[in-house]
Amino acid sequence: MIRFLTDTTLHVFDFTPAKTALDEIKQDPMAGWLTVPVNPDELAKIKQAAQKINSDSDYLICVGIGGSYLGHKAMIDALGNRSRTKVVYAGNSLSSAALDRLFTEIGTHDFSVNVISKSGTTTEPAIAFRLLKAGLIAKYGEDGAKQRIYATTDAEKGALHDEAVKKGYTTFVVPNNIGGRYSVLTAVGLLPMAVAGINIDEMLAGAREAASGLNAEFDVNMSSATVDTSASTVREAARYAIIRQQLYKEQGRETEILASFDPRLTTFNEWWKQLFGESEGKNSQGIFPASVIYTTDLHSLGQYLQQGRRNIFETVVKITTPGERSIVVPEDPQNLDELNYLAGKTLDYINEKALEATVRAHRLGGIPVLEIEMPDFTERTFGELIYFFELSCALSAKISGVNPFDQPGVENYKQNMFELLGKPQK
Amino acid sequence: MIRFLTDTTLHVFDFTPAKTALDEIKQDPMAGWLTVPVNPDELAKIKQAAQKINSDSDYLICVGIGGSYLGHKAMIDALGNRSRTKVVYAGNSLSSAALDRLFTEIGTHDFSVNVISKSGTTTEPAIAFRLLKAGLIAKYGEDGAKQRIYATTDAEKGALHDEAVKKGYTTFVVPNNIGGRYSVLTAVGLLPMAVAGINIDEMLAGAREAASGLNAEFDVNMSSATVDTSASTVREAARYAIIRQQLYKEQGRETEILASFDPRLTTFNEWWKQLFGESEGKNSQGIFPASVIYTTDLHSLGQYLQQGRRNIFETVVKITTPGERSIVVPEDPQNLDELNYLAGKTLDYINEKALEATVRAHRLGGIPVLEIEMPDFTERTFGELIYFFELSCALSAKISGVNPFDQPGVENYKQNMFELLGKPQK
Repeated sequence: MIRFLTDTTLHVFDFTPAKTALDEIKQDPMAGWLTVPVNPDELAKIKQAAQKINSDSDYLICVGIGGSYLGHKAMIDALGNRSRTKVVYAGNSLSSAALDRLFTEIGTHDFSVNVISKSGTTTEPAIAFRLLKAGLIAKYGEDGAKQRIYATTDAEKGALHDEAVKKGYTTFVVPNNIGGRYSVLTAVGLLPMAVAGINIDEMLAGAREAASGLNAEFDVNMSSATVDTSASTVREAARYAIIRQQLYKEQGRETEILASFDPRLTTFNEWWKQLFGESEGKNSQGIFPASVIYTTDLHSLGQYLQQGRRNIFETVVKITTPGERSIVVPEDPQNLDELNYLAGKTLDYINEKALEATVRAHRLGGIPVLEIEMPDFTERTFGELIYFFELSCALSAKISGVNPFDQPGVENYKQNMFELLGKPQK
Repeated sequence: MIRFLTDTTLHVFDFTPAKTALDEIKQDPMAGWLTVPVNPDELAKIKQAAQKINSDSDYLICVGIGGSYLGHKAMIDALGNRSRTKVVYAGNSLSSAALDRLFTEIGTHDFSVNVISKSGTTTEPAIAFRLLKAGLIAKYGEDGAKQRIYATTDAEKGALHDEAVKKGYTTFVVPNNIGGRYSVLTAVGLLPMAVAGINIDEMLAGAREAASGLNAEFDVNMSSATVDTSASTVREAARYAIIRQQLYKEQGRETEILASFDPRLTTFNEWWKQLFGESEGKNSQGIFPASVIYTTDLHSLGQYLQQGRRNIFETVVKITTPGERSIVVPEDPQNLDELNYLAGKTLDYINEKALEATVRAHRLGGIPVLEIEMPDFTERTFGELIYFFELSCALSAKISGVNPFDQPGVENYKQNMFELLGKPQK
């Protein structure tokens, strides 16, 4: 189970704000993700589709933007693409060059397309899908193309839903009660992850185990000054949420840096930034979400974090057993680089010491540092971690007084763009 | 030439602070980059080495961290790896998994190593170099390995310098008067870029053309309320520096977001963050540097930028002619996705409208937006852009009262780490 550790100065003596927030979230029509629901028939259909794609495709091109791609890309980048089908991405920008480079990579290989869009009319994925559909038809014919298009969309309505029904694509459901940034453990993320060879049953089990603590009562008066190894994920998520808001409102910590010591978590950081930024950044408030990968960025943003403005706090994701294969520093009789004091040590060990050193240095430099400790790098633990962050994000937004599930500001640039592009009004 | 555009409210009426700062920078022993100096013999040697590497290596593994890798990786990711030798990276983290994945990619291919480190004892690159050196010796023998190691390091001293001399590696110089984050246009960046097939003469020419404005007098009393198409890069860099400091000190804009509408600039954003963060983040002050890639991140951080805390300003890099090949939206008689109003338009055109829409929406949302307009996506223009940012960064740091060229805080985690790892004291 993951553990949540804090500065010794950051106590939570009163869980009431989280308890109140959780009660409200339980009633919210957009909190479908809270119980990690997946229909067994849908799950079986996902696995079947993944098997077919693995059998007939060198590439699966996932077409989606924002919450429709970040979660599964985060997991596939973290855990590695373990199947013979490489999962790649399109429709998450308007760059000709990016699409052109993708087409060059695909070349003459066999491919399928998973288009992921609730409406089907979001500009970026709609354009990419139109192009890829034309490519599929040119390569496999009308009928062949239909067998290679998988549409993850609304169950009942919308442009993509209607097209899928009309053409007979295999479809999967974006649930009505789960928003994009909370959707990685629905068909949105499960199909691409399954195609990449990730064990989605294990990931769902990890998240559900975490969710099983939902109905236990918080001991609202209990201090969390010390580490409570028996604390449930739900309680730890509540503690993280409360401490974040304390740091923001009482200490003026306006920016949170999510830090990991593993480049495999680069896209995970991006998923986290959308989750928290889109949930909390409204009504002219919200903690600004930023991220770093260490030790890489200790040599770039490290200077700022050590000695720049003190309006920051840091949340470090620590992986206790990260290894795919642990590389050992070899002995060198000449020792010209003066590294022999590390000979025989694994990189993972040295990385762990770098983490401890960074936490110590940043605390001494005046940065509150929170730590989230993962026992291993498995699907089950990632399922728990996803749930931990989703729940703490919803709680934190609620505590701060905003709606964790809407994104009213995203429409502003779209309206402006449609006007500039001359989109016909309905 | 690049152009710098601002909100109509952001005037610079007095260039005196930039003039004073520039006079001080000209005297600074670490401002070697200011005149873009490259020794002609060194340049010829770089090209010769690149030719040899292209002839005998499928991969060039660049070993370095921070300023030793970000600049050239930024340029190679932007312009594309155009030669048959693929430039890849090691020694910029302590991740076993990352290194393991790299070794898997290299497989049995031919490779060379460019180790880039002023001292040779920075932990991350030193470990990677020790491992790669062993790999080269195992594959090519002691003599063969020496022919495939290129050391970019101090001209006279240090562990890597001494080893290179003793073993007879080909060496290149990290100049004493240029710090890591300002070093991309020295051998540090030039060799990897040349290997990737980038025209380094053009890039140097672009930077030098920009630097040629250095000795012209600023008209310190001239208003910059309107766009001055004849303004030199130096004057525009001064204007950017002054406006940044105005936004920070007078308007409380504590975070700057560098935004680009092209995923090819993802690593460029990272280079920029090191340049500005490490130069300005000290003495408990400095603008916090963050970055986004649009339209991708409009669907993640877009909500925060539109409606979150108003302590932010944004700098958009706009590319007027980005195309490698411009993809056109095809007509579809069925128009199920309602995209036919865009049929016949290029993605580049739609992306440009998305940029205009974003700038407009963010300004209306209360975010000052600066724009840097690149006429094209060529080596010459990137040379100018690099120089523009280096100069404006140094000026801005100077104006804010800190040393643009040191990084005293980077040592803190290193000292802690050496202690935890038991490094022998000298």
